[in-house]
Amino acid sequence: MTMPEPGPTIQLENPLPPGSRIGILGGGQLGRMLAMAAARLGFHCHVYSDTSAPPAAQVSEKLAVGAYEDLDRLADFANNVDVITYEFENVPVTAAAHLSAHRPVSPPPRALAVAQDRLAEKDFISGLSIPVAPYVKIDTTGPLPAWVDDLLPGIIKTRRLGYDGKGQVPVASREALEATCRQLSGAPLILEQKIDFAFEVSILVARAADGTLAFYDIPRNEHRGGILRRSRVTDEIVAPHVATEARVIAQRIAEALDYIGILAVELFVEAEGKDPALRVNEIAPRVHNSGHWTMDACNTDQFENHIRAICRWPLGPTTRREDIEMVNLIGDDVLRWPEIAADGEAKLHLYGKDEAREGRKMGHVNRVLSSSKAS
Amino acid sequence: MTMPEPGPTIQLENPLPPGSRIGILGGGQLGRMLAMAAARLGFHCHVYSDTSAPPAAQVSEKLAVGAYEDLDRLADFANNVDVITYEFENVPVTAAAHLSAHRPVSPPPRALAVAQDRLAEKDFISGLSIPVAPYVKIDTTGPLPAWVDDLLPGIIKTRRLGYDGKGQVPVASREALEATCRQLSGAPLILEQKIDFAFEVSILVARAADGTLAFYDIPRNEHRGGILRRSRVTDEIVAPHVATEARVIAQRIAEALDYIGILAVELFVEAEGKDPALRVNEIAPRVHNSGHWTMDACNTDQFENHIRAICRWPLGPTTRREDIEMVNLIGDDVLRWPEIAADGEAKLHLYGKDEAREGRKMGHVNRVLSSSKAS
Repeated sequence: MTMPEPGPTIQLENPLPPGSRIGILGGGQLGRMLAMAAARLGFHCHVYSDTSAPPAAQVSEKLAVGAYEDLDRLADFANNVDVITYEFENVPVTAAAHLSAHRPVSPPPRALAVAQDRLAEKDFISGLSIPVAPYVKIDTTGPLPAWVDDLLPGIIKTRRLGYDGKGQVPVASREALEATCRQLSGAPLILEQKIDFAFEVSILVARAADGTLAFYDIPRNEHRGGILRRSRVTDEIVAPHVATEARVIAQRIAEALDYIGILAVELFVEAEGKDPALRVNEIAPRVHNSGHWTMDACNTDQFENHIRAICRWPLGPTTRREDIEMVNLIGDDVLRWPEIAADGEAKLHLYGKDEAREGRKMGHVNRVLSSSKAS
Repeated sequence: MTMPEPGPTIQLENPLPPGSRIGILGGGQLGRMLAMAAARLGFHCHVYSDTSAPPAAQVSEKLAVGAYEDLDRLADFANNVDVITYEFENVPVTAAAHLSAHRPVSPPPRALAVAQDRLAEKDFISGLSIPVAPYVKIDTTGPLPAWVDDLLPGIIKTRRLGYDGKGQVPVASREALEATCRQLSGAPLILEQKIDFAFEVSILVARAADGTLAFYDIPRNEHRGGILRRSRVTDEIVAPHVATEARVIAQRIAEALDYIGILAVELFVEAEGKDPALRVNEIAPRVHNSGHWTMDACNTDQFENHIRAICRWPLGPTTRREDIEMVNLIGDDVLRWPEIAADGEAKLHLYGKDEAREGRKMGHVNRVLSSSKAS
């Protein structure tokens, strides 16, 4: 796939003063926490959502409801704000590009284009000589080439609209691969080799408009049913040289995208001594679930640094105060709120969602670890 | 003055679950920070204000605009929420009492009645055998009794609607006192003896519905032009026995009022060795400016503990992590935002107010002190 080139875009020339209006595309919990961080800095938030009562609207000044494909509605939204950001990566690139002609849009729409398509993402990252799992584009209309066997066992992934483990099918044999291709016929797919990694981590970097970078410490992430369950941050997650490698990877991706805001890079960590030590799983051009621990362990959390970056403010310090663990409250987990509320070690964050559907992220809990350096 | 007795009121019988609606009377910065704390716990906030675009509305789900005397409008507001609190003490007691018949109102309206009238406040506190500055009710319609001379030099204060130093006139002589009384004729007044105190502190206590108490550390408060300018909290603000005395005072006041929520008690600290060591200046039945440092130095800040208390949740820990200083941004101070934003030691909090009028609280900055125990 050819990468869409950035079109003519507007950039902020000066730091945006408090009292200005920030437009947020998407109204979920990430938008909600962005809106609260923005409010603490004196900004007014307008949320654009395709649902009528999204969590972010509860803490924002204005809500515009419309489809992400409704360019007129989007232009109207843009004309009432000073800068625009987004809280999920499935905003159509055409919408983001359209908005860039009206107002500064950060992170850059090109980052959306890359993150939205697993093939473009893999091509882009491996094009930077950064290791990824071996992969191949699958053309379901033609026969599979013989050499796909080299990537088995693997994982078939839809190129678009996958999140929280959706759109992923493990395939162990050529027969399973062919069956899955028939089943998903028509959807653009890639096949990724299954990597025998030791564990997963992520690195979040904030990049300011002037190119300044600020890295957060690296959490180890555990998933359950494809959904992030727990992120844990201590000094011992990865060896110092691996942490350095992760920072170099994040920096190269952020710089190649001329990125502004928080960028999350999910990484597979190989068993010790293996080379490469890290492979990029995927990137998210936004604040990220694996950075929620920053709310209770850093002077400046990921949400505030995202707002600072997109408003052309200097970044705040990302130093971690304590060892900490973040646990997502998924679906019925949220019913444990009375127990969590009574736990003096727990810091509860709920998202204002009414219905605790299965697999739905209802909130999270941060907990300083008792073995913490601060204790 | 006779204390209004509490009328029939509704109380919460169980902890209010996340997703419930909290009504906040008043839309200023205190309401704004309460609303954000409530949102973090998954509550929906409705703000009642007599102005059309108050700071708290920017981060709240709903805004009702009406007079605090409009009992029908207030009843309508009450019927759409599950519990009610207030962010300033000049909510008419009749309004609060009226609302108590519809929904649980915390802190109790009786605390409002006491805090709204300097004479009732002094009578109540000295009635608990807690030291206050010597004071007397002034009747401007009759002659001044001879013995008022004993309280000179003193300060004439209007009994109602004084805040940030408003409604206070220092009087050094009987002539000045008489002139001030003529000038303020008609306004209910008290005369307080000028206390030669060493400095001012405050103590904030959270009291839960079950009577549990949680005290915050004691800040030393500096005022400028009658407005709080700076609060500083270290281990050395007052001697341990004085801190204990302050906690006892706050506890007795909170218990006498059957208080629920955050109560602030402002105290004069006498020179070392003097007896009494502390005198109560005034109380505030709400979250308080001198507690804003808790946002960046405590696991549970004053706003969250207020919300926890009024929702019948257990209180969170009030332990202070670091030595810290809070400086208010008053009027034009807020124009220094670029400098503060670039200061990695500063934590900026802005209130979303458009016009930086003289004396208007526009925001505050918390700064961990470099001599901090955490450093």
